[in-house]
Amino acid sequence: MAVYTEVPDDEMAAFVARYGIGDLLSAKGIAEGVENSNYLVHTTRGFYILTLYEKRVKPADLPFFIELMQHLAGRGLNCPVPVLDASGQALGTLAGRPAAIVSFLDGLSVRRPGAGHCGEVGRALALLHRAGEDFSMKRVNALSVPGWRPLAEQAGADADKVSPGLARRVMAEIAVHEAGWPKDLPGGVIHADLFPNNVFFIGEKLSGVIDFYFACTDAYAYDLAICLNSWCFETDSSFNLTKGQAMLAGYESVRPLNEAEVAALPALCRGSALRFLLTRLVDWLNVPPGALVKPHDPLEYDRKLVFHQRVSDTREYGLRR
Amino acid sequence: MAVYTEVPDDEMAAFVARYGIGDLLSAKGIAEGVENSNYLVHTTRGFYILTLYEKRVKPADLPFFIELMQHLAGRGLNCPVPVLDASGQALGTLAGRPAAIVSFLDGLSVRRPGAGHCGEVGRALALLHRAGEDFSMKRVNALSVPGWRPLAEQAGADADKVSPGLARRVMAEIAVHEAGWPKDLPGGVIHADLFPNNVFFIGEKLSGVIDFYFACTDAYAYDLAICLNSWCFETDSSFNLTKGQAMLAGYESVRPLNEAEVAALPALCRGSALRFLLTRLVDWLNVPPGALVKPHDPLEYDRKLVFHQRVSDTREYGLRR
Repeated sequence: MAVYTEVPDDEMAAFVARYGIGDLLSAKGIAEGVENSNYLVHTTRGFYILTLYEKRVKPADLPFFIELMQHLAGRGLNCPVPVLDASGQALGTLAGRPAAIVSFLDGLSVRRPGAGHCGEVGRALALLHRAGEDFSMKRVNALSVPGWRPLAEQAGADADKVSPGLARRVMAEIAVHEAGWPKDLPGGVIHADLFPNNVFFIGEKLSGVIDFYFACTDAYAYDLAICLNSWCFETDSSFNLTKGQAMLAGYESVRPLNEAEVAALPALCRGSALRFLLTRLVDWLNVPPGALVKPHDPLEYDRKLVFHQRVSDTREYGLRR
Repeated sequence: MAVYTEVPDDEMAAFVARYGIGDLLSAKGIAEGVENSNYLVHTTRGFYILTLYEKRVKPADLPFFIELMQHLAGRGLNCPVPVLDASGQALGTLAGRPAAIVSFLDGLSVRRPGAGHCGEVGRALALLHRAGEDFSMKRVNALSVPGWRPLAEQAGADADKVSPGLARRVMAEIAVHEAGWPKDLPGGVIHADLFPNNVFFIGEKLSGVIDFYFACTDAYAYDLAICLNSWCFETDSSFNLTKGQAMLAGYESVRPLNEAEVAALPALCRGSALRFLLTRLVDWLNVPPGALVKPHDPLEYDRKLVFHQRVSDTREYGLRR
């Protein structure tokens, strides 16, 4: 994990006591979540996850994330459910940080997703979009088109140290999207970070979706583009059409794409590849000395971007129409 | 943790399947144990700890540790119980490392032990010594007197970079113990590392003892000296006599010390302070670049050593005779 806050036993016990989930029996710091510190907590009532929100999460955004999880869980989605304290609040303060307790979800992240997993993820993503339709809060996607140029400028010429010509390639790609980003697509709450490490399976069956700390209000098809990028490429950055077919079919079994979404998908895939290329690039260039975590390789998304630039029809991702 | 092995979901599931503890439901890497990688594993049968033994643990020592835990648990001690696979083996191989699954123990480590905790630990230590009396395996304590000079030589003159004069002080102290280390004391299996992070409490009650990976065959009173060092000093390295009294009384409520042990305790406290000073010193001088863990301060044990050097009577530790 990138950060890790150690919580003394007495402070932990006092915090847990506020939530009416029984007495604290154990608390183990777990290696999950890059942005926050997480503890797997056992009480006389059961197992829970306690999260301390570290500095990369804005406190002002926390009510959106917490209420979203409550809303989605209430609509039957398998996601962490925030526990409320005696005064009806989910958020508290522990070790000087905002903190919350959520339900524990079983399941394992898959290292090498197969087409079956991709189909399950497509379906779960559409269910998430459906479940969020009547969620009233909004959160701007800070990592959509207007956020990309500032990220590229932050990396600056140093991008070329990562790969020769990268700074220029990134700027050209940003200009394409600033000029012609798909507008007026169906939208609402999106997860915006549904990578394999944020989805749990028990055997072949999807058992839960976690980590809603990038969730925001944006086009549904953009969320699908993020998943095509993060689930359907092989480790050599080749696109696996069988996985793409499974994901798109899984998604459309719950929420069919409209014509505008189908037409927009190649651009959304390019854009989302660029978004992860940019944030990874900035992280890569800003590793603090002695950092606990090796940043993700930005060039993985440079290679995916090249694939998407050559796509002209959503059928190339596996859409069967 | 100092090291951390990531285990893919499919390899984890296959490993767990061998142990007849039901199907794998989740596995969380936990921030526990400095020497090994640990996962908190949930199966359809319950919760377990899966440990991957990293390079600081010698594979040849593993049968001693595993059989010791089995033996002590069989005598009623609250310690992790190794789970056996279909062929009766506790040790297997996972991600290229020796690995085992043990029972999950509830409880929390206390950050600031009080006298009550120290009494519980003294009692538990004596129960551990009693429970190990009929354990037939032996393991030499590699970190007793003959191991100290090689450690000091490994640190060499660099010790003075940590504290001026430390190299000379350490060598003088080693010479004292090489000349007059207490012999022929009652002995058997000792834990040898029963620091607060290796003892769990639920409320004020001791609920478990973990981490037997320094356990060996040595004098019982040496184990008690290690506990006096690690539990009864305040953070400013002052000795808390009330805690010492509680620990010694707790120990003697189960296993009274004989005259030779009482007479030897000041020397054993000096020696065990030196042992932790030396290993911490070597770790401190050998932090690899980018290490995940900040090593413990060796000078904490230099200050404790100074306290012990001035003790001439075990009553100064709180023995009531």
